[in-house]
Amino acid sequence: MIPKTHRRVVLVRRPPGEPAESDFRVEEVATPEPGPREVLVRVIYLSLDPYMRGRMRDAASYASPVGIGETMTGGAVGEVVKSNHPGFSVGDIVEDRLGWQEYAIGGSATLRKIDPSIAPISTANGILGMPGMTAYFGLLEVGRPKPGETVVVSAASGAVGQAVGQIAKLMGCRAVGIAGGAAKCDFVTKELGFDACVDYKAGNDLDAALRAACPSGVDVYFDNVGGVVSDAVLRNLNFYARISLCGSISQYNATSVEMGPRLMGTFVGKRVTARGFIVSDFAGHYEPALRQMAAWIRSGQLKYREDIAEGIEKTPRAFIGLLRGENFGKMLVRVGADPTKR
Amino acid sequence: MIPKTHRRVVLVRRPPGEPAESDFRVEEVATPEPGPREVLVRVIYLSLDPYMRGRMRDAASYASPVGIGETMTGGAVGEVVKSNHPGFSVGDIVEDRLGWQEYAIGGSATLRKIDPSIAPISTANGILGMPGMTAYFGLLEVGRPKPGETVVVSAASGAVGQAVGQIAKLMGCRAVGIAGGAAKCDFVTKELGFDACVDYKAGNDLDAALRAACPSGVDVYFDNVGGVVSDAVLRNLNFYARISLCGSISQYNATSVEMGPRLMGTFVGKRVTARGFIVSDFAGHYEPALRQMAAWIRSGQLKYREDIAEGIEKTPRAFIGLLRGENFGKMLVRVGADPTKR
Repeated sequence: MIPKTHRRVVLVRRPPGEPAESDFRVEEVATPEPGPREVLVRVIYLSLDPYMRGRMRDAASYASPVGIGETMTGGAVGEVVKSNHPGFSVGDIVEDRLGWQEYAIGGSATLRKIDPSIAPISTANGILGMPGMTAYFGLLEVGRPKPGETVVVSAASGAVGQAVGQIAKLMGCRAVGIAGGAAKCDFVTKELGFDACVDYKAGNDLDAALRAACPSGVDVYFDNVGGVVSDAVLRNLNFYARISLCGSISQYNATSVEMGPRLMGTFVGKRVTARGFIVSDFAGHYEPALRQMAAWIRSGQLKYREDIAEGIEKTPRAFIGLLRGENFGKMLVRVGADPTKR
Repeated sequence: MIPKTHRRVVLVRRPPGEPAESDFRVEEVATPEPGPREVLVRVIYLSLDPYMRGRMRDAASYASPVGIGETMTGGAVGEVVKSNHPGFSVGDIVEDRLGWQEYAIGGSATLRKIDPSIAPISTANGILGMPGMTAYFGLLEVGRPKPGETVVVSAASGAVGQAVGQIAKLMGCRAVGIAGGAAKCDFVTKELGFDACVDYKAGNDLDAALRAACPSGVDVYFDNVGGVVSDAVLRNLNFYARISLCGSISQYNATSVEMGPRLMGTFVGKRVTARGFIVSDFAGHYEPALRQMAAWIRSGQLKYREDIAEGIEKTPRAFIGLLRGENFGKMLVRVGADPTKR
């Protein structure tokens, strides 16, 4: 039974700094009818990702901002419950940018079917979705690690970071994480097999901790955070190091541009390359990458951890926690029952 | 007649900040005798270049520091006055890293003969030497400009900058310089044909001036200076912009790492690539590049300006002025008569 109404989360105010729950509103609206070549999707898992903070700003970016009063954007996995689209049937599990809501209209070119036999369907938001592709291409195509090199990744236990370190290990590299707290560091070293992890919250000298974790220096830095954590890595780069610039979550809530040490001058003599990327730059190459990632998951060489909040109404709070680093693993919200779990 | 003694400039103290003349000593020493496969060169033109500031530091870099009491390093053009080397004859004009001195022993693998019929021999220190090659490869190989794109170069009237803008024009780009003072800006626009020049000393809003000079934004930034000038360019970069990191002269005299706005986070969404390079990375490709540059000089498409101090004893003062931006064009010191000029 499809309910007549459903809930969604809209943006009611552009957060000046750290978002507050009052910047969002959970509202009940009529469940829409799919048009021609469209489907109605019952959303199961919402993906929460740091890039969404940028969509709350009214600033030119690589994507348009969410309008005030509009449903927050974001990837989600769900089940087709009505279909006017010849390519999708009722019962299909699908993934797309469906937004922070319980029911969504799908049908864009990016709507894709998920095979529940490969891995839990939630992974289509994570290791076998946008974050996994971000890790894969940001490391392999932008960072270009060579066997024996040292790869450092910040936000190491996050959706992207956990995959980056494991792929680095699969490439024959030394993988070093940076994460906040002993539990996250233990997870990436003991569960995921990273060679070392630096706890940036431990209050130690971060530069010294990094030097200890990277006795041969840093060849590839996969940067999710920016700020003082990245400063420490930049001071430990090797000659010909590559920086894969994926995000700078430490700056996302800043109300003005933060000041930091001028370190780019050191890139000259060391011939460092820093390159920003967005995962969709590699959209034409997702299929073989997803096959490779799925194979690594099946063989047990690629693991992942999810942090699941329950209920659409918890989404704003979970997102605020994500920006604070309170999540432990890929942040998801379960907004409906998962029919593939029994 | 070869004199029994000659003068050289040695480093007597590592300057903590801005170098002072007292950090150097001009001393008279015995003129050396060339050994087997060596030549004695009478130096004519010394090249003064910003990178030399780094050689005065006792810090790990891509090259070793100059020792206390040792002759300052640097490129120079001179005349062979004695030869025990089968490849060089008395009277040959040569270029190599001969140092801040009136007579020098040559014979390393990088010693090269200069053909005075191509261009004035001083250009072997400039447009047809290290600075010219820096401009050529730093722009074409690192910056990779495409026709119609906007190329911005800082220190635009300097040895490297003047070549960068002219090569950009030859590639069909809009060339915009940044220089200190109206005279330098007039020179690069009216003499060298840059499309526009921003005077960073004019006291205007640098960001606004850059936006006016670059109505389509900045696609390639060839950075010689770092600091606040570069901040303004970084705020005006286009999507997929490339930054060719050549130097950061604004920081060379700093006694501690300067603070500046954190702008690298903007590289992500814009997919900016910043890459540091050293001209010697391209040493295997100098010959065709020098032929191309010489052809452009002969055809009048590539011009250059030199700023020549007179006498070896003026070298420390001229170098201090170079770091202050007091030079106007490629900085040279004439330490001996140029036999090709009459």
